[in-house]
Amino acid sequence: MTTRPGRRGPLPIENVTIADEFWAPRRQIVRDRTIPHQREHLAAGGQFDALRLAWRPGDPHEPHVFWESDVAKWIEAASYVLARERDADLERDVDEAIGLLGNAQQPDGYLNVYFTLVKPGQRFTDLRDAHELYGAGHLIEAAVAHYEATGKTSLLDIVKRYVDLIDRELGPGGAIEGGYDGHEEIELALVKLYRATGERKYLELSERILDNRGTEPYYFDLERDRRGDEGWAGDHAAFRARPQQPELFREYSQAHAPVREQRHVVGHAVRAMYLYSAMADVALERGDLELRTACERLWNDLVSTKLYITGGVGADRTLESFGGSYDLPDADAYAETCAAIGLVFWAHRMALLTGQAKYIDVLELALYNGVLSGISLDGTHFFYGNPLATDHGLERSAWFGTACCPPNLARLLSSLEHYIYARDDTSLTVNLYVAGSARWEQDGGSVSLHQATAYPWDGNVTLTVETDAVRTFALKLRVPGWAGSAYHIAVNGEAVAVNIREGYATLQRAWHSGDSVLVSFQMEPTRIWADQRVRSTLGKVALRRGPIVHCVEEVDNAGPVSGLGLKRSSGLRIEHPDTLDVDQIVAEGVFEPTPGGGLYTCAPHSACNVEIRTVPYFAWANRGKGAMTTWLREAAEGALG
Amino acid sequence: MTTRPGRRGPLPIENVTIADEFWAPRRQIVRDRTIPHQREHLAAGGQFDALRLAWRPGDPHEPHVFWESDVAKWIEAASYVLARERDADLERDVDEAIGLLGNAQQPDGYLNVYFTLVKPGQRFTDLRDAHELYGAGHLIEAAVAHYEATGKTSLLDIVKRYVDLIDRELGPGGAIEGGYDGHEEIELALVKLYRATGERKYLELSERILDNRGTEPYYFDLERDRRGDEGWAGDHAAFRARPQQPELFREYSQAHAPVREQRHVVGHAVRAMYLYSAMADVALERGDLELRTACERLWNDLVSTKLYITGGVGADRTLESFGGSYDLPDADAYAETCAAIGLVFWAHRMALLTGQAKYIDVLELALYNGVLSGISLDGTHFFYGNPLATDHGLERSAWFGTACCPPNLARLLSSLEHYIYARDDTSLTVNLYVAGSARWEQDGGSVSLHQATAYPWDGNVTLTVETDAVRTFALKLRVPGWAGSAYHIAVNGEAVAVNIREGYATLQRAWHSGDSVLVSFQMEPTRIWADQRVRSTLGKVALRRGPIVHCVEEVDNAGPVSGLGLKRSSGLRIEHPDTLDVDQIVAEGVFEPTPGGGLYTCAPHSACNVEIRTVPYFAWANRGKGAMTTWLREAAEGALG
Repeated sequence: MTTRPGRRGPLPIENVTIADEFWAPRRQIVRDRTIPHQREHLAAGGQFDALRLAWRPGDPHEPHVFWESDVAKWIEAASYVLARERDADLERDVDEAIGLLGNAQQPDGYLNVYFTLVKPGQRFTDLRDAHELYGAGHLIEAAVAHYEATGKTSLLDIVKRYVDLIDRELGPGGAIEGGYDGHEEIELALVKLYRATGERKYLELSERILDNRGTEPYYFDLERDRRGDEGWAGDHAAFRARPQQPELFREYSQAHAPVREQRHVVGHAVRAMYLYSAMADVALERGDLELRTACERLWNDLVSTKLYITGGVGADRTLESFGGSYDLPDADAYAETCAAIGLVFWAHRMALLTGQAKYIDVLELALYNGVLSGISLDGTHFFYGNPLATDHGLERSAWFGTACCPPNLARLLSSLEHYIYARDDTSLTVNLYVAGSARWEQDGGSVSLHQATAYPWDGNVTLTVETDAVRTFALKLRVPGWAGSAYHIAVNGEAVAVNIREGYATLQRAWHSGDSVLVSFQMEPTRIWADQRVRSTLGKVALRRGPIVHCVEEVDNAGPVSGLGLKRSSGLRIEHPDTLDVDQIVAEGVFEPTPGGGLYTCAPHSACNVEIRTVPYFAWANRGKGAMTTWLREAAEGALG
Repeated sequence: MTTRPGRRGPLPIENVTIADEFWAPRRQIVRDRTIPHQREHLAAGGQFDALRLAWRPGDPHEPHVFWESDVAKWIEAASYVLARERDADLERDVDEAIGLLGNAQQPDGYLNVYFTLVKPGQRFTDLRDAHELYGAGHLIEAAVAHYEATGKTSLLDIVKRYVDLIDRELGPGGAIEGGYDGHEEIELALVKLYRATGERKYLELSERILDNRGTEPYYFDLERDRRGDEGWAGDHAAFRARPQQPELFREYSQAHAPVREQRHVVGHAVRAMYLYSAMADVALERGDLELRTACERLWNDLVSTKLYITGGVGADRTLESFGGSYDLPDADAYAETCAAIGLVFWAHRMALLTGQAKYIDVLELALYNGVLSGISLDGTHFFYGNPLATDHGLERSAWFGTACCPPNLARLLSSLEHYIYARDDTSLTVNLYVAGSARWEQDGGSVSLHQATAYPWDGNVTLTVETDAVRTFALKLRVPGWAGSAYHIAVNGEAVAVNIREGYATLQRAWHSGDSVLVSFQMEPTRIWADQRVRSTLGKVALRRGPIVHCVEEVDNAGPVSGLGLKRSSGLRIEHPDTLDVDQIVAEGVFEPTPGGGLYTCAPHSACNVEIRTVPYFAWANRGKGAMTTWLREAAEGALG
């Protein structure tokens, strides 16, 4: 993902280093454990072997429609690792996987083993359910990552041939003329392919697919009528009501209206995030104001009515979809890990599109909370859903039958470099505070910026410029929304007053090597309340410190967490005990035993004072099973014994 | 429903008068409006016409499997009216409906128009879904009510012929040998038939059907295999997952285990209530301790983990079924009106079986709250589900496609006489405090008891004995569980100390005509808290006064009800404004505006003091659509501005 001239874009991975006490060990675990763990599971599940095209009906490990996407996401994650470090073994594994993909590719460019082996002759008949273009999209993302990391075109050549076939088939007289995939993904991938190759046809194809969506006649009805049956997922329990609820299932794939006219965030949350990401990409590349307005409208709907305090999205587990406005249950939250990752993708693109830091606020929220909760501290166990409360505890799984979340985590965390800085011709933007450095060309010379910080545990960041000559550029520092006006900026030791525009403090000056900027955000633990229309949070309060949302686990507290109440008046302090190596918030609270004597009683027990201890939400469920809650009951007036 | 010698039982309707300011007007509305309203809907829907057997395929108003039950429940309700008053027009309408049922009865006694006209040749092939024995049960209940009200045997003769056929078919070599209906009902109806006729074979048939349930081989699998398809409801959305979740759907019909072994209240709530009612009936008639123990075990499970504070039961709307323990959502509560009515039936039978008043406590709770909320004050609009909260308000419907609840309400409210008193040879029990009188034979003479009370708005009840001679018997007065020890009893003006046994104050004496008993229950508004394992009620409190559970409606209060908070320290007082002609609780509360500035905020607005006004839960949704909540947030410590 390189920066295109004049356009705001991320820095390439090789220009960024991450030497951060929070992120570096996590990324090392992803590299050392998560990526190998995933390769093992792919090998054991038959995903690699399927590409040898040796499977025959009756054999074990029948190929699945989205197996290529599993392999592709693994290649993509591994490629991001290769972009920052040499690793001959890993590179050989990647090359081997690419070789298998080449082996599975058909003479005309087609590449999906399910339709090659299991359902020959049925390719491109079921875009609604069968994930073919989704798989192609992940292959494209992998190819771009691999090409940018290694300079090799082995996978890029494979996907170009496949995309050329898709392009033809989507065109006049093609098998999928006027079509689009039920699961968005290829749209954003094609923009990446355009940026990596400079070939405009890929951008145009992305835009065409976007604009096909939601038009009449309804493509998924057309292909169903051609096909004559309910298709690949027609018999799946969640989809059986489809014939009776056509509108609901059009929304499920965001195909209820042309994308430019969509007003509300609906349907399958991951699909929605990928779609909106592509819309933002195309809006940026095309300067398409209509598309940008649609993105902004959808964003406002999301953040004002459908976003969990953790950055999770997609409340409804039945269809892995958004609920209605303010429909944000806590224990029953779905909040799929992949959807929070998708929100990071979308937020990033919105920030690049608009230059506004409010999008990074949400990106940061999702990244440090609803994304990171999806992976265990040991890097080998994963949550698909991320509820905000549980009565009995939950455990992460080593793998899933539909294994989208684990490799999605690996590829996001391995490409964190992309999200820290943004660059255009005249400025460098610091979006995330992560210790390390950035290097870029400025007016023909090389400039580096070094970040030193203990973020997210501490709000002080020291930025040091290193340059071969005096260079004039704007250094734009994001002032996180959570910081409000409680921040302080000093240049070379002298406090400066800076106007904040679009959420950024902009320091426009001629920078000398050694110039330093200290930016400090007051990082006090803070109570958060939700709009009262959110039923699950009524009478409850959450705790946040900086970008980190906290929760209460049974293991740190005496008695059931449902008995805990937080006093509105009590102070909150920070402790950093050995457990989990995270900051805890410690609050003076009350414990009110459950009223005894049956289900209902008119005599509650007396409450007693207790200390309430939190942990960051991302760290929960790493110490065995136990109750957890993110929203904590506020102590009732008069409840104390 | 007559009292059998020596056995505890209700008084017949004609021995009881209700002259009560709360109930008499409601029953008059049921008689004047609800019962005619229902007859009109049955006529318009084709339920009566179907019985002429003139329907042919292609005609409108295709008969439905449970149309007989709709007609039967209407006859039953009307019969209860006829038991207390002469009404030639109503009696003629009833006779006409019975004539139609006679017309529809087949020569061999069979009586279900759906299988006679729509699916000829398929009778008794689908007990799981097709409600045939359920319909027969309602016909039996109607016949017993009609016979006891009028002395006529016209319907009783019809149902006896039908029951004889069912008895044969359930026997060796019959079409449904070893079977039972997916929807319980005939079991309790057969006990009524036994009691009305004295014919023991009906009790034995009930017991046989009960003991068939839940045995292996599983009857519903046997009949499916014989039938070769998924049956009448196989394609209904809610049942499509049946093949994948056999255990869930066995529980749905309480057929997961033999009834004597069942431990947990599960499945479709109405079915469950009707089953447990029949179990209690048979336990009483047979002195069957094993069956009684099963009933008590199921009861304890219900009241300790699955009962709404309103007496509603069956939390889950998807399958109209019980959820898990403590799974009692408020806004999403299903709590079907018929299920609360079924709980009244079961609780009544448990009280008769055990002589314990705790069952009447639940009966009273359900009756005054979760049952009565099902019918509008004007008697012509009905709730199927009875949620405990709503954000936007709900409106009762004039009728339903599946119209079980309206006639169920009519037959319960029209037979309220049965629930007020219980009688055995040596005692009269007052279970409900309802102004009016009871008359019974005592030692060859006639005794009357007159109740004067403004219950449920006032806790004072004056009971006066009228007798032709001094009669010795025990007068057992229920001390409601909600009263705790705050009650007072005086006989002829003198306070008496009475031990409470099984929830009853027993006054054993030689009664003279004119003897009076004053019983007073302190009826203060009371806060109720739920077990903290009930997620929807955490941090919330409910208000109850006497048997009446209150709720907060938007129309009586300033601002959204979600912003209201009740202080634990504030006093509660009673007002009786003109609106709705009910007592309101008025409490000093706070109003805390929803935090502004988006979905989440770290700065709540200041709260202000407000008066919170409640109405009885049964009276809600009678003044247009608006938000309502039964569980009110407790004001947070420190929230006041």
